[in-house]
Amino acid sequence: MAEAPSASATTSSAIIDFERSPAAYRHWKLSFDGEVAELIMDVDENATLFEGYQLKLNSYDLGVDIELADALQRLRFEHPEVKVVVLKSGKDRVFCAGANIRMLAGAAHAHKVNFCKFTNETRNGMEDSSQFSGQKFICAVKGTAAGGGYELALSCDRIILADDGNSTVSLPEIPLLAVLPGTGGLTRVTDKRKVRRDLADVFCTTEEGVRGKRAVQWRLVDQSVPNSKFDAAVAEMVRELAAQSDRPADAKGITLTPLARTVAGDTIAYSSLKIEIDRQARRATILIQGPDLPPPSDTAQIHTQGAAFYPLRLARELDDAILHLRLNELEIGTLVFKSQGDPAAILAYDALMRENAGHWLVREILNNWKRVLKRIDVTSRSLVALIEPGSCFAGTLAEILWACDRAYMFAGTMTGDNRPEATVTLNELNFGRYPMSNGISRLETRFLGELGSMDRAKAAMGTPLDATDAESLGLVTESFDEVDWDDEVRIFLEERASFSADGLTGLEANLRFAGPETMETKIFGRLTAWQNWIFQRPNAVGADGALKRYGTGVKGDFDPERV
Amino acid sequence: MAEAPSASATTSSAIIDFERSPAAYRHWKLSFDGEVAELIMDVDENATLFEGYQLKLNSYDLGVDIELADALQRLRFEHPEVKVVVLKSGKDRVFCAGANIRMLAGAAHAHKVNFCKFTNETRNGMEDSSQFSGQKFICAVKGTAAGGGYELALSCDRIILADDGNSTVSLPEIPLLAVLPGTGGLTRVTDKRKVRRDLADVFCTTEEGVRGKRAVQWRLVDQSVPNSKFDAAVAEMVRELAAQSDRPADAKGITLTPLARTVAGDTIAYSSLKIEIDRQARRATILIQGPDLPPPSDTAQIHTQGAAFYPLRLARELDDAILHLRLNELEIGTLVFKSQGDPAAILAYDALMRENAGHWLVREILNNWKRVLKRIDVTSRSLVALIEPGSCFAGTLAEILWACDRAYMFAGTMTGDNRPEATVTLNELNFGRYPMSNGISRLETRFLGELGSMDRAKAAMGTPLDATDAESLGLVTESFDEVDWDDEVRIFLEERASFSADGLTGLEANLRFAGPETMETKIFGRLTAWQNWIFQRPNAVGADGALKRYGTGVKGDFDPERV
Repeated sequence: MAEAPSASATTSSAIIDFERSPAAYRHWKLSFDGEVAELIMDVDENATLFEGYQLKLNSYDLGVDIELADALQRLRFEHPEVKVVVLKSGKDRVFCAGANIRMLAGAAHAHKVNFCKFTNETRNGMEDSSQFSGQKFICAVKGTAAGGGYELALSCDRIILADDGNSTVSLPEIPLLAVLPGTGGLTRVTDKRKVRRDLADVFCTTEEGVRGKRAVQWRLVDQSVPNSKFDAAVAEMVRELAAQSDRPADAKGITLTPLARTVAGDTIAYSSLKIEIDRQARRATILIQGPDLPPPSDTAQIHTQGAAFYPLRLARELDDAILHLRLNELEIGTLVFKSQGDPAAILAYDALMRENAGHWLVREILNNWKRVLKRIDVTSRSLVALIEPGSCFAGTLAEILWACDRAYMFAGTMTGDNRPEATVTLNELNFGRYPMSNGISRLETRFLGELGSMDRAKAAMGTPLDATDAESLGLVTESFDEVDWDDEVRIFLEERASFSADGLTGLEANLRFAGPETMETKIFGRLTAWQNWIFQRPNAVGADGALKRYGTGVKGDFDPERV
Repeated sequence: MAEAPSASATTSSAIIDFERSPAAYRHWKLSFDGEVAELIMDVDENATLFEGYQLKLNSYDLGVDIELADALQRLRFEHPEVKVVVLKSGKDRVFCAGANIRMLAGAAHAHKVNFCKFTNETRNGMEDSSQFSGQKFICAVKGTAAGGGYELALSCDRIILADDGNSTVSLPEIPLLAVLPGTGGLTRVTDKRKVRRDLADVFCTTEEGVRGKRAVQWRLVDQSVPNSKFDAAVAEMVRELAAQSDRPADAKGITLTPLARTVAGDTIAYSSLKIEIDRQARRATILIQGPDLPPPSDTAQIHTQGAAFYPLRLARELDDAILHLRLNELEIGTLVFKSQGDPAAILAYDALMRENAGHWLVREILNNWKRVLKRIDVTSRSLVALIEPGSCFAGTLAEILWACDRAYMFAGTMTGDNRPEATVTLNELNFGRYPMSNGISRLETRFLGELGSMDRAKAAMGTPLDATDAESLGLVTESFDEVDWDDEVRIFLEERASFSADGLTGLEANLRFAGPETMETKIFGRLTAWQNWIFQRPNAVGADGALKRYGTGVKGDFDPERV
């Protein structure tokens, strides 16, 4: 755990920007050697996101994690040749001390929750890279990997620990901080590493952690190796994992160019979407703009377009927009998704990607959409889609409708408006290419209770469905014609804004994830919900709680009452 | 929802007793007609568990639910002939208004959490009766079934709703109270009734609820029937479900006699176990006493012994002990399980039950053990087993070892003590007869990461395993001999007592449930954890929150910030 600096942390009102470029990294170093990349964590203790703390001992705040997420994204897109990523520390005697305690102690509840959500998404993304992008991770731990430091290791395919009397893995949150290892730690210990539950209990309550052979016996790490043999063991592990990778050997990456983004008052404009914020109504509208150009003809041209290729460009912009709203606009309780454009163009892009789904770059773009859609799924805001004349919710973009809590569709046309009637069109991508974190598609989750509905939806693929058809197929919540549309939408939005923000958070977190559970849903359900509860409890966050007292030498003054 | 009385509720310091007898029921009426029982909810508004509220409109508090749990238990054991239970209201125009709001508003956080846990267990128990005891439930709703009222209906196999313009089902918690329908409501709507998520969203935000055809279309109820045809439709449903039941036609029930229980200071003695509380150490020891007599020879004699039959007697006493500690001893953070007796006697009782597992009464006893063990699993206290010389953790009782967070075993004998060396013995009941709420056995959950361990454990069935063997088979956490035992146990117990109660609650709730998830684990994981979080948030429980303002005509004053 990080040493506590003396000043107390304060969250500033500065906008958190999620855009990064490797040249400006303060905390991570990437180096490349053929099919292997080294990702070295070397946190600049003074380059903090907020004032009031220092990032000692490779501890991290959200700023460090934003760089990590950027690096992972570049590894996927800019480095198709990389089959194995070796994660190391740039510090002596410490691998990573986890999330910075002073930062956590000073952060507002909402920031803590959103910080954890983002770091969880980043770690889930590493497992996604491993499983679906052929990019494997080895965590080479020298020194102490404590708390979030060990949780980072847990996200890798393999963990190798130096057997040197100093290097340990630990989850000391309970004894030191009275909070949980909430970045997937508990879930990955039980469900990924499958550590026996009583040993996991011992491990999670042992401040000093576990090292050497015991760490291997308990399955906390895969290997414990003396320093003299460490590099050779890592190299052997690299060979083993590289052999499992299906990354292309001779492909060239594309560059993830900076996002085109302009802010003017309460409007944020990207190249393919626009956010408009209505502060009084506590609502943001995200308007997605269809492509200007038809799709290119082959993968070579997709590659040439690179980050400008519409589906990739839109996904990156949408991701940035969601993150911005989550972290910087806490009082905006409802996100309204709209689109304008030619559904046929969306379907044409989808068709091109489907036909070339095996190409590494197309695969990355589709995987990226999957992750962006999952990010929407777990966004703690009420999500509603308004399907209006001229909209283009088709194929990939139609997934947004079912990520939303509700979708309303305009029936017919508007008087004095020559935009075409609203339609929804399905294609193959809606039937499995974008699984939710529960492992099944949004349509399958939606139709758990009515198997016939899946068949009917499949039979409708390719057909532009008007409001009547979309409603009868169960694809939208309700449709209204011109007479009722404005009132019905207004009433819904006003009603939503009148409910308790917390009540809605809990409601939505439960209703969105019917059906099977996975390690990911456990992390966002069970683990995160309990952590959020603890983040409200005086034993952790009160004036005499463990987070506030950390580093003072005085233990938290705990209320012994159990619930 | 219940009308709010004017006085504010206060939790009293009186001990909550879980023992009930039908003659003294204040809130429920049971009547019998051959294979059908009617369970009528007719809450006495003045018979509250605490002061400060009235149970208007068939709203409930823990006292009402304790009677319900008692009635369900008697239906299982005292009425083998009952195949179908019809749940009705004894009030006009209201089925059940759910948990009493004023009670919730006045209750301490820990009471709210424990109240919800118990009501959840009772409702899970109804589904357990249906699935494993052949006792099916029909909820015949006339009038409004709101919140917990509808959640009670959701626990039944079938819901039939009067189509009379007045009868509705609703989950108005979010619009009215800013909390979740936390007694399984959200989970059963999505995962049992498989209501489409956007319709579930509409339903859970519609204060007035849904009725008639729409309630059927959305799968909220199974049938909507006019009053003129209501009784006939219920009768038809009874016939259908009775045909699915495997309850015996001509068996006679046994009587669940009052528990033998004496309280003397901090010692509570039952016939087969004893609780000793050490307040300073915040610890309770539960000492299980093995049987005095060998098992009877056949099911007729089991029936004659009835509630005195050792396995049933112990299970009922253990259940009562756990509930007492949960609700009445909030500061007792650690439960220590010990046993004394002849392991061979435990195994002999188990063998008798296994050989007669198909007999209705034996089946009920085994099902009851399953539920009691699940109750231990979800008990929010640190659980530790101490396996000492003379103990009898064998077969069914060995399950307790793996319900615990840790199990320590004494190696060898104690100087000057002639009790036999501690052993653990497995039998067939440890391999599937007592699944956890995740649907798999405790041993399977324990050995998720090591399949060979299950085979080794199976091969060891019937062999008394000493500390060395038990430890090497992974059945206990660690063993110590006489030299280290006292110190090691003391250090562990002291360390445990030093940790944050809330941190431990979250830790244990995560580590105990590796592996698959079920509707039950979702209820205790995702839904409960979010509800507990909301129960801490000012929007719900603050002075201006919705629970406090309910009934004043003034809406909660909500902080709009989202997390």
